Amino acid sequence: MAWTVRSTQDVTYRVQQTDSIFDPGNSTLADVAGLQQRSRRLVVVDRNVDRLLGRAIRGYFTAWGHDHATFLVLEPNEAAKSSDALLSIAQAADRAGIKRRSEPIVAIGGGVVTDLAGLAASLYRRGTPFVRIPTTLIGLVDAAVGAKTAINFNGHKNRLGTYFPATHTLLDHSLLRTLPERHIRNGLAEIIKMAVMKDSTLFSLVEQDADQLVDRRFDTPLAQQVIERSVSGMLEELEPNLWEHDLKRLVDFGHTFSPVIEMRAEPQLLHGEAVSIDMALSCAIAHDRGILGREATMRVIGLLHRVGLPTWHPVCDLSQLCSGLEDSVRHRDGHQHLPVPTGIGRARFLEDVTPEDLGRATTLLADLALESAGR
Amino acid sequence: MAWTVRSTQDVTYRVQQTDSIFDPGNSTLADVAGLQQRSRRLVVVDRNVDRLLGRAIRGYFTAWGHDHATFLVLEPNEAAKSSDALLSIAQAADRAGIKRRSEPIVAIGGGVVTDLAGLAASLYRRGTPFVRIPTTLIGLVDAAVGAKTAINFNGHKNRLGTYFPATHTLLDHSLLRTLPERHIRNGLAEIIKMAVMKDSTLFSLVEQDADQLVDRRFDTPLAQQVIERSVSGMLEELEPNLWEHDLKRLVDFGHTFSPVIEMRAEPQLLHGEAVSIDMALSCAIAHDRGILGREATMRVIGLLHRVGLPTWHPVCDLSQLCSGLEDSVRHRDGHQHLPVPTGIGRARFLEDVTPEDLGRATTLLADLALESAGR
Repeated sequence: MAWTVRSTQDVTYRVQQTDSIFDPGNSTLADVAGLQQRSRRLVVVDRNVDRLLGRAIRGYFTAWGHDHATFLVLEPNEAAKSSDALLSIAQAADRAGIKRRSEPIVAIGGGVVTDLAGLAASLYRRGTPFVRIPTTLIGLVDAAVGAKTAINFNGHKNRLGTYFPATHTLLDHSLLRTLPERHIRNGLAEIIKMAVMKDSTLFSLVEQDADQLVDRRFDTPLAQQVIERSVSGMLEELEPNLWEHDLKRLVDFGHTFSPVIEMRAEPQLLHGEAVSIDMALSCAIAHDRGILGREATMRVIGLLHRVGLPTWHPVCDLSQLCSGLEDSVRHRDGHQHLPVPTGIGRARFLEDVTPEDLGRATTLLADLALESAGR
Repeated sequence: MAWTVRSTQDVTYRVQQTDSIFDPGNSTLADVAGLQQRSRRLVVVDRNVDRLLGRAIRGYFTAWGHDHATFLVLEPNEAAKSSDALLSIAQAADRAGIKRRSEPIVAIGGGVVTDLAGLAASLYRRGTPFVRIPTTLIGLVDAAVGAKTAINFNGHKNRLGTYFPATHTLLDHSLLRTLPERHIRNGLAEIIKMAVMKDSTLFSLVEQDADQLVDRRFDTPLAQQVIERSVSGMLEELEPNLWEHDLKRLVDFGHTFSPVIEMRAEPQLLHGEAVSIDMALSCAIAHDRGILGREATMRVIGLLHRVGLPTWHPVCDLSQLCSGLEDSVRHRDGHQHLPVPTGIGRARFLEDVTPEDLGRATTLLADLALESAGR
């Protein structure tokens, strides 16, 4: 005898912008986290957030009647994105004694903390809702608006994870004011990614406002548009393919060689920095193939340089790049599916990049990068 | 600005019966695991399976061209259903170098191993397919036919997990021939659960064949019917509610007090033994309420005794039972949703069981159990 089981899961989640999110007069967080009910809460933050915003956050919870909320403070770096940190969140959930469906975990921090808390929430009792408040630019436009949760494992970036979006994600770009410049650049890498793959208007906006966006930490007239277009572009890509049944993904631009670069570079590169190098290399591959013109190639590399992102790192020798590509091929089930631009805002996938292609592209990239620097 | 993301996931999985599953002449496993492609494979088994069937299993993989498959042997007991074992599977998947979609993990063993391997598969690269071959009765009719994966954590049964069914589950009840009697009884608890909740015919079949089913380890004329009705009943309940959006579940009969009994009893009880005690207690609660007649109550308790299952354990003092109920209430998001029979094959949910009710039910159960034993 044989049985076939067929079931359908509908997933809906909301991403919304707000301002002065931890002002007790702003009820947005209280509403989405159901703080009006005086029940148990677990709040997971990272050490930077705790230092800069800890008092405001605790004040907010107290003002809404949650002076007994359980707070867990995690380290914000990639090395801390581990199974140990994951289990510490589950332990804190036990301590807090939260209910399974109506007492969401609240995660406030960069991508490390929101990815970690998301994975813990998805595993805890096989799914406890969570609310996400990204405090970094990369979180705001990328890590915290999708469905992916993860930890690093066995030397591999995001090797273990789930698809489990926060029921609500709140974006407050005024939180970026305290962010170090390097982390603004880091987030700009993912914005440039979306722009190059599918939104030439966004690319022009970033070109136009690049110095200001960094110097004034997104407190500029164009910042709102830049964030909105990035998030919209990202969600358009994710919505029809939330569980990645289709492994050809534009949002993987810059994410083929970067996992190995990010995990092996010393001193540690930020995610967006590794993505930037990968994007530059992918452009060089496309240029070498003759499918991306010289001007467009130089515009991408030039913009990466202008916002202060790297396009090279000594860890990128040919053997590392090949091993990065091999692991991405396993990840894409035997296919390269390498997204490369064919212009600003246009893209296609390559399936047949050889080690020789990679070798030529690295040489080409070195020349282009020198030229860009000399301009 | 605000965005709402809506996405739908369709999940289909197959459960099928087969015979002499590890005979190289039987292509069923090779077909569902795609062994015709000479690629990489990770096979996770438990130590008992390895001892009894290891040679046959390895022989099967070799016969199908996979003499380099990676084998991982895990301990089969509840204490080993841990985050360490989980991570050891992920590490083995890295070692095996399997692709993300087309090289499924094969899990062969009892519920501990299939739950563990299922969780590892669901987390590895955010989802790697797996194939499940239960080797115990409880696996065949319960643990390995649903979508739940899990590890125990922080003293709590199945505290962390996902919903991630094996793409294919193969049931071969000839594997039960080497199973210790106690494990046959263990599986019968879940069969009796389904029977009491919704299938009086199944209940009668088990009554009729109880001694034979145990003594001859399901090598009886009725065994096939018993397994088919159990699996069908289980899948009927799961299919419309695979992600447990509805927390009122008939299949939770026997699973309200049992997690705490199972985790705290010394020496260790098997899962079905703890479930049996919980079912007896739930019947006593229903009888005490006047919603389950005396005859039906005695039939359930009588059958549990006849197949050699316990209906009591010293760990069940009132405070443990209350704490078990409290945790189940958190698990059911603030509701008791306690499934109790109202007859053989009929059930309802209680929402207002008090500690006093529990106290009376334990006394009543002691009397009924004594009476049943005396019959």
